[in-house]
Amino acid sequence: MKYGEFDFIGDIRQMFAQLPNNGFEGIGDDCSVLPIGSDEALVFTADMLNEGVHFLTDKSSAYQIGYKSLMVNISDVAAMGAVPVATLLSLALPEERFGAWAEVFMQGYLAASKKYNVTLVGGDTTKSLSGVCVNVTAIGRVSQSNIKRRSAAKVGDVVAVTGALGASAAGLRDVLNGVLNTENAMFHLMPEARVREGEWLGLQGAVNAMMDISDGVASDLQHILDESRISAIISENKIPVAKGATLDDALYGGEDYQLLLTIDKASSEMVLKNFHMAFGEPLYIIGRVVASENDECKVMIEGDDGRLFDLEKRGYRHF
Amino acid sequence: MKYGEFDFIGDIRQMFAQLPNNGFEGIGDDCSVLPIGSDEALVFTADMLNEGVHFLTDKSSAYQIGYKSLMVNISDVAAMGAVPVATLLSLALPEERFGAWAEVFMQGYLAASKKYNVTLVGGDTTKSLSGVCVNVTAIGRVSQSNIKRRSAAKVGDVVAVTGALGASAAGLRDVLNGVLNTENAMFHLMPEARVREGEWLGLQGAVNAMMDISDGVASDLQHILDESRISAIISENKIPVAKGATLDDALYGGEDYQLLLTIDKASSEMVLKNFHMAFGEPLYIIGRVVASENDECKVMIEGDDGRLFDLEKRGYRHF
Repeated sequence: MKYGEFDFIGDIRQMFAQLPNNGFEGIGDDCSVLPIGSDEALVFTADMLNEGVHFLTDKSSAYQIGYKSLMVNISDVAAMGAVPVATLLSLALPEERFGAWAEVFMQGYLAASKKYNVTLVGGDTTKSLSGVCVNVTAIGRVSQSNIKRRSAAKVGDVVAVTGALGASAAGLRDVLNGVLNTENAMFHLMPEARVREGEWLGLQGAVNAMMDISDGVASDLQHILDESRISAIISENKIPVAKGATLDDALYGGEDYQLLLTIDKASSEMVLKNFHMAFGEPLYIIGRVVASENDECKVMIEGDDGRLFDLEKRGYRHF
Repeated sequence: MKYGEFDFIGDIRQMFAQLPNNGFEGIGDDCSVLPIGSDEALVFTADMLNEGVHFLTDKSSAYQIGYKSLMVNISDVAAMGAVPVATLLSLALPEERFGAWAEVFMQGYLAASKKYNVTLVGGDTTKSLSGVCVNVTAIGRVSQSNIKRRSAAKVGDVVAVTGALGASAAGLRDVLNGVLNTENAMFHLMPEARVREGEWLGLQGAVNAMMDISDGVASDLQHILDESRISAIISENKIPVAKGATLDDALYGGEDYQLLLTIDKASSEMVLKNFHMAFGEPLYIIGRVVASENDECKVMIEGDDGRLFDLEKRGYRHF
């Protein structure tokens, strides 16, 4: 497909570059940034979820879809080192989903919002001729000096993730097999954004680049590399593969909503130790940032025997 | 239908009232307001447009749909007296709409954005299993002292609109009859938000309440009355009915995107005169604000003979 998502976004970025930026940092990160005086900034992100593409209404409850709609958005805010403060929710519903379904959806959305004190400030509800469509725009606040951008990774940094990978992909397999009660299935249906971790990592000066893992670590790390003009080597045996998941799930499975970051090597031990103290869970070092050769920014994987392979470039497909 | 749009929004408003407001003025106006220090504020609004509900892809070109998607959103920003500065655009497309269709859509969106120097700062593109779904979140800037709210209308104010009404409803009729080249049809397919007028009216201290007319003046004026706890009388013979439109189109037809406002009576002559000088077009006084009786906030219409009737409460249906 010529217009894969990333091509299309690249084209849009170019088309709209002629417009004044009105003080915003534009497209190209998890969120757009708007400095608002003193050291403060607001960040903005939007995500659309479609029935049959991002969720199946016969596999997920309305509550779970509502919960997940909020979480996947504030995950992008957390990925900037920002604190989510508000959302706007647009909801297109087929006639038969008004009433009970919509109310339960809102209860799920409310539960997720309450968890992190995110307020709902606007949106839209409308009829859809076919299928549920959800759009959430999330707004976050952050000190300008704590913002973590994809473009800030440096050669020598270590690459880290906030938790085990592949759980969501393994969970999706369970769900599609009709097994909804495994831990992975639950995680897939109701993921948890790393909101507190994102804020905490934002405060760490040694953390250089950060983003959230929504399309799989292979594909998402590539974004950091492209924006930072560097390459990375990840070690096969250091990837924290979630229980029940495969290495393939961990590398290419989407929707884990862990944070992916690079840390200045000299301070990384201290960050790891403090993270563990703060959250009772480890940060996992999975690799290192290296200079790109011939201007080619790529993810390489290092086997046990030290041999390097280029990681396959493939994205995540929901179903 | 128990869950008409307004019931559902009312329910949501109540459900989410328990959350901290994080500095935002919540749901209930054209936009949500966030003061950001000194006298400044940002405003936020989101609108979702669905194929078959808000537009027909065999009647509207991709360019027109893109153009309109931006305009209907910045109209809400203008309605607050604010200047639109940025948008986030989410776009769900069926497979066959990627490529040429999507590119032309973006050209329409770009043309509208350029007209008012609105930058595109983010969004999402995704596949849809059926039908195009567009969500735009618009961000505006405004001095806090210039914000116009639905809740600020006062007894004695005059009620005004920025232009002729019913053009869009009449244009929709033309479009559905396959006549796409009338002025009204063009207006329906590519409406113009009153951006400069909104900003200008924001600066007028004598303007009390303001909103945009997206569902028809009858239905939208009701929102001002409900939020301000007042009633209004509009004069049948003062309503500026667009050429080719009926009085019914003007009262109940949606998508005119004119601004509806109330002005302090003592200063209204001056505002009218200055508006005419600034824009070369008149502001139309269509009625007056009166106290509500028995706490019932309603729109009444006054015939030529001075007799009063309650306006029928019906909203706009696109098709």
